[in-house]
Amino acid sequence: MSQSPHIHPYADYLPRAEKEKLLGQRGKVLWFTGLSGSGKSTIARSLERLLHDLKRPSVVLDGDNVRTGINSNLGFSDADRAENIRRVAEVAKLFCQNGLLVLCCFVSPTRALRGLARQIIGEDDYIEIYVQTPLEECEARDVKGLYARARRGEITNFTGISAPFEEPENPHLIIQTLHCSADEAAREVLRFLQPRMELHT
Amino acid sequence: MSQSPHIHPYADYLPRAEKEKLLGQRGKVLWFTGLSGSGKSTIARSLERLLHDLKRPSVVLDGDNVRTGINSNLGFSDADRAENIRRVAEVAKLFCQNGLLVLCCFVSPTRALRGLARQIIGEDDYIEIYVQTPLEECEARDVKGLYARARRGEITNFTGISAPFEEPENPHLIIQTLHCSADEAAREVLRFLQPRMELHT
Repeated sequence: MSQSPHIHPYADYLPRAEKEKLLGQRGKVLWFTGLSGSGKSTIARSLERLLHDLKRPSVVLDGDNVRTGINSNLGFSDADRAENIRRVAEVAKLFCQNGLLVLCCFVSPTRALRGLARQIIGEDDYIEIYVQTPLEECEARDVKGLYARARRGEITNFTGISAPFEEPENPHLIIQTLHCSADEAAREVLRFLQPRMELHT
Repeated sequence: MSQSPHIHPYADYLPRAEKEKLLGQRGKVLWFTGLSGSGKSTIARSLERLLHDLKRPSVVLDGDNVRTGINSNLGFSDADRAENIRRVAEVAKLFCQNGLLVLCCFVSPTRALRGLARQIIGEDDYIEIYVQTPLEECEARDVKGLYARARRGEITNFTGISAPFEEPENPHLIIQTLHCSADEAAREVLRFLQPRMELHT
């Protein structure tokens, strides 16, 4: 018999509702999908600051902190792209279950990949935002020089050039960035999010 | 040229210091190591509640939410155990950089595995806590029935039975659970953590 009857195995985690109450908000995952260069990360990082000004803790997950960290051992094969999205969705779920607002920025070019994310995160918490910037504009911006490399054939299987982007069929929100600033786009997302992140009292 | 000069690519993430200020604490990772059944998760879940009572947001990462989620595609080979710890450490780092207190509960039986975690998380944020419960006690508790199965040879490579546990050489804290409750153990960890999680003002 155990000598430590007071050690209760399987004590539960603190319930999500209590964590949300402490943070004063509901956890949600905003899943930004769109072409490379469409503005996903820039909008999300602006939104992170707007939320912070409202005292709402959030986290941005994008290629910069995911591909260099937890997914540093993944490449760009179809299998690795799916595993990339699977892990991101699982990490997002952990943050969300702990009451944070999670801003995920990944091209996630197919309905299958976004469906995987939605299924892992759960219908109630998943908000899909399509950052709809025309390919020509993304290519003109080419902030990382990736389109030029893809055109030269140095990158294969590049979404928009040599691989398809399947438009979201039923996103919760569509953001068109052609004639607005990142800050304006972020405010538009915030307006959509605000009633959904409030605790029901 | 881009038509959207206001979209600033590579806008920075909100700095960690601002996130910590909002949450009123410094992010830290408590890495609980010890035999299966030593009490790691039970102590961490008690600590999660104590911290919550102090209005400090924290997150518990342990087998229950990691092995069923982000690491559901890993087994127990040496390579998979290392990948398990690598991914957990990367997730813990993300939470910590967003200002949360992270309570990681993993056997992590070798100095190499704990060194990997420490290296990923970073010296400043990593706090190693050795939950030092004698093997005989862990086996007597056998809350998951794993020791019995390991003794019958149904589980191979089981830490303490058929695989070694290398004691931490220089942990920040040692918790002995033989004669204290999980709550008492959690309070001991809290006393150690408290000055380290305070914001310097």
